Amino acid sequence: MHIGLIGLGKMGGNMRSRLRAQGIEVTGFDRNPDVTDVATVAEMVAALPAPRTVWVMVPAGAITDAVIGELNELLEPGDLVIDGGNSRFTEDFKHAELLGTKGIDYIDAGVSGGVWGRENGYGLMVGGSAAQVERVMPVFDALRPDGPREEGFVHVGEVGAGHYAKMVHNGIEYALMQAYAEGYELLDARSDLIKDVPGTFKAWQRGTVVRSWLLELLVRALDEDADLSDIEGYVDDSGEGRWTVEEAIANAVPVPTISASIFARFVSRQDDSPAMKAVAALRNQFGGHEVKKAEG
Amino acid sequence: MHIGLIGLGKMGGNMRSRLRAQGIEVTGFDRNPDVTDVATVAEMVAALPAPRTVWVMVPAGAITDAVIGELNELLEPGDLVIDGGNSRFTEDFKHAELLGTKGIDYIDAGVSGGVWGRENGYGLMVGGSAAQVERVMPVFDALRPDGPREEGFVHVGEVGAGHYAKMVHNGIEYALMQAYAEGYELLDARSDLIKDVPGTFKAWQRGTVVRSWLLELLVRALDEDADLSDIEGYVDDSGEGRWTVEEAIANAVPVPTISASIFARFVSRQDDSPAMKAVAALRNQFGGHEVKKAEG
Amino acid sequence: MHIGLIGLGKMGGNMRSRLRAQGIEVTGFDRNPDVTDVATVAEMVAALPAPRTVWVMVPAGAITDAVIGELNELLEPGDLVIDGGNSRFTEDFKHAELLGTKGIDYIDAGVSGGVWGRENGYGLMVGGSAAQVERVMPVFDALRPDGPREEGFVHVGEVGAGHYAKMVHNGIEYALMQAYAEGYELLDARSDLIKDVPGTFKAWQRGTVVRSWLLELLVRALDEDADLSDIEGYVDDSGEGRWTVEEAIANAVPVPTISASIFARFVSRQDDSPAMKAVAALRNQFGGHEVKKAEG
Amino acid sequence: MHIGLIGLGKMGGNMRSRLRAQGIEVTGFDRNPDVTDVATVAEMVAALPAPRTVWVMVPAGAITDAVIGELNELLEPGDLVIDGGNSRFTEDFKHAELLGTKGIDYIDAGVSGGVWGRENGYGLMVGGSAAQVERVMPVFDALRPDGPREEGFVHVGEVGAGHYAKMVHNGIEYALMQAYAEGYELLDARSDLIKDVPGTFKAWQRGTVVRSWLLELLVRALDEDADLSDIEGYVDDSGEGRWTVEEAIANAVPVPTISASIFARFVSRQDDSPAMKAVAALRNQFGGHEVKKAEG
Repeated sequence: MHIGLIGLGKMGGNMRSRLRAQGIEVTGFDRNPDVTDVATVAEMVAALPAPRTVWVMVPAGAITDAVIGELNELLEPGDLVIDGGNSRFTEDFKHAELLGTKGIDYIDAGVSGGVWGRENGYGLMVGGSAAQVERVMPVFDALRPDGPREEGFVHVGEVGAGHYAKMVHNGIEYALMQAYAEGYELLDARSDLIKDVPGTFKAWQRGTVVRSWLLELLVRALDEDADLSDIEGYVDDSGEGRWTVEEAIANAVPVPTISASIFARFVSRQDDSPAMKAVAALRNQFGGHEVKKAEG
Repeated sequence: MHIGLIGLGKMGGNMRSRLRAQGIEVTGFDRNPDVTDVATVAEMVAALPAPRTVWVMVPAGAITDAVIGELNELLEPGDLVIDGGNSRFTEDFKHAELLGTKGIDYIDAGVSGGVWGRENGYGLMVGGSAAQVERVMPVFDALRPDGPREEGFVHVGEVGAGHYAKMVHNGIEYALMQAYAEGYELLDARSDLIKDVPGTFKAWQRGTVVRSWLLELLVRALDEDADLSDIEGYVDDSGEGRWTVEEAIANAVPVPTISASIFARFVSRQDDSPAMKAVAALRNQFGGHEVKKAEG
Repeated sequence: MHIGLIGLGKMGGNMRSRLRAQGIEVTGFDRNPDVTDVATVAEMVAALPAPRTVWVMVPAGAITDAVIGELNELLEPGDLVIDGGNSRFTEDFKHAELLGTKGIDYIDAGVSGGVWGRENGYGLMVGGSAAQVERVMPVFDALRPDGPREEGFVHVGEVGAGHYAKMVHNGIEYALMQAYAEGYELLDARSDLIKDVPGTFKAWQRGTVVRSWLLELLVRALDEDADLSDIEGYVDDSGEGRWTVEEAIANAVPVPTISASIFARFVSRQDDSPAMKAVAALRNQFGGHEVKKAEG
Repeated sequence: MHIGLIGLGKMGGNMRSRLRAQGIEVTGFDRNPDVTDVATVAEMVAALPAPRTVWVMVPAGAITDAVIGELNELLEPGDLVIDGGNSRFTEDFKHAELLGTKGIDYIDAGVSGGVWGRENGYGLMVGGSAAQVERVMPVFDALRPDGPREEGFVHVGEVGAGHYAKMVHNGIEYALMQAYAEGYELLDARSDLIKDVPGTFKAWQRGTVVRSWLLELLVRALDEDADLSDIEGYVDDSGEGRWTVEEAIANAVPVPTISASIFARFVSRQDDSPAMKAVAALRNQFGGHEVKKAEG
């Protein structure tokens, strides 16, 4: 099988390597001349056998829009576009409709695994028609981890379902990380009693209820920096976490741990908290409690 | 009526003033010679008519314990001790038992109102026997705000009930403050659209669902400092908020807003968050996301 | 002054009464022939002096859209539409643009006060141009509570700012209600100790830090039904609370108490919780903990 | 090595089996004559070589207290008691002091693994002196999972540290379970889009960031009951989760996801929510919103 792949950054570049290692022919395009296989998207399209399959792996939003717009110009009826980026599932409806007008098929693929995917394979959640999913199954099989297909790949439903499942996956991921982090902070706070915090996490890797891949990664991090003194507690967040809460609210689903995880990240990035200024001001007003004066 | 009052700090001093203004005779003791009426607790006790009433208004914990221990030595059967401080309700059981062995009565009184109480009166929640509460009703009537007695005073139940109600009062207070503070931060975040944040809070004082005394205090604070730029978002917490959550957990009562309010205060006092260091470390491990290096 | 008022339901009908009592002439239209002053919107428009002012007080969303569409047909350049309903602030941008194309002005007005507004007046937060706000100030003055204008009315900013402020007001309102409710449940859980829950809330009305209008309403509710035994713990939510959380997330503002309040309402409406089924299933899997079998 | 084991229930019985399979001689005592090896604790003690080692595996609280009290009578200086149950770490201080007076040593051991431990081994977190831990290492090695010792066993610190680490482990566990459960509910809520919820969880087992043992257990549960229709969303909680929040509060550590997990369990067990009754009552008071009448 021979596919096109647009976007050869951290994720796309690794995916090209894994696909080729698994026997899939890949013609990759990237704006960065150091990594691209071809000079233009058009050249990439020209290199592919019809019906063509193009995997898009670029930042969600305007860039994905632009790439899919360009593909809509260049591809032909019967071709297929797969968006493997972190697009919101509502974008899939729009992209599928645009391409569909011209007879081009569309699959959305949620991809998990980060920098480890090249070696371990990527967890895949896809949305689209059964026929199209079947057609590119060799690509999915090349990307997914070894083992039974159903343990690393799922056809979740029609267009949008793949990114929806990936969105929920990431929402869960946020809360899992926060859970371990709260436990870490509590152990760390009792250094009078807990004499080996890294060793405790290490010992949780086998036999316990909390064992997981994220735990193993935390063990690695603590191996490198036992008290995380080199790292600042500043955490970005990406779209999926936010969208998960928005979807939860739209569907009246309570998500207290997922939302708490996101709020903790928001706070982590604030130099000072307007909300807590207001609480400090209130305490001062009713109780005469001293406030900390901001430094000029 | 003539009572003793131990503790003449910010709260106790104001209470002495209000009691006297309302016609209650007060002999006050404080370690601070500038404010005390008598040189020793013994001297205060000697000045009181039997059966004596002594109101204790000192910091909860060891100091309250010591004062009540001393009173247990000095007072006689039939006398009455009122703990008006911020003691945990479980302390009341202990104090009532100690004094009771000697035939001394005990009332716990939760007192709300802060620095405004001298002028406005104090909200009172008391626990103890009906007979004792009745006996010192003139004192409660002098301290409570004008208006119907039942709108500023309640006999909640037996010993401990007064402080329990005050504890819950403060738990609610924490969440109310946090609620306004979250709204403040959100309005503040949209300064492109919201051109008058202080004016918005000011306008909520009449007719709206959110009008309250705390809102009025926030309006005062914003009058003094329209964007709270002089105040740091650093907020202490006292025992009552914590005890409220502990009691909630002990009684299987979900208190998501009260606990969130307390956690927000904890975070406000951290230079850096160990938990968020752990999350940052995890993201770096699985996704290669950059971390902010802590400054040496 | 003479204005048109579309929508004479619970809110609109009361507002008509208050406006007339304050000397504002009102021609009201409602689909319900029992309450309307005129048979059609066109008839209402015909009755108004130019430049006309029409206050829209109908359900947010499709109905408001339809009414504003109809007014766009019937009104003339220089006329003014005020949306006093619970529209999302983003709708205001759309409505102002539509009407603006034809030279019709637009103001959004957030209105708080519920069924009490007719007597007490309504808290008002408005968005629009200074000139238009000035022009209809007699209407705002008639609707707002007695007292200083700035304590019941605010011109928050340009179009959209009024509804935005009202949205945040309602988000705060949700958390305030939840705060009192958590305190209520905790007092209720300790009926062994707390012998007078309604009396405790009643006594918080004067002197305490938590006194507020919502507290007074809770006192009224407990006067009518001391243990709320006639009421089911089932709580709806409207758009403003959800939008507040969405806006908070879009602006990276942590709102733990507001979101917790909404989640509590979601849970209150569930017959059974899919999430808690999953937790029960997990406990059964790892610990052999018994699950409650669902009844067939 | 030959040890005594008190408590042969679900956990203790399995541990006896695993210990024997690994070559440790065990004399077990249980009140249940069907499973016990000896008729009395005294008989068990008599059967053990000095210095004796007795592992206690009974319910935390009064029963553990009683067993340790009995052992204090029966054992001799130089003997060792290991509490492997779910005792609060503060109990360990008490038990170590009691036994220590008589020269009997004490180790607290947090044990994770549930019903799977017999086959997979148990994750172990222990507190006590290095010399004692070393002495019974063969027992720990027999109980812990295969693989490197440090991945299934940790000597956390002095007495109490083992149960403390286990307490935090369980707090994390609560939040992890809640995280998956929230994701499950959100996927379930969009059955219009998500056509294979069990398949989605199954596919997360390899390559994804959220893969874990708990995820595998959820997959098993969904294999048995694809929509969990046989299970009621009713979830108990045990001491460790509550203690984790109490400890967090005592140490000013924010634990929003762990507390949210516990509150969700509290709610799951309520027939009706007093708090939500209060919110419903409030909405009715200010907005005239209808309440659901409780059924007589």
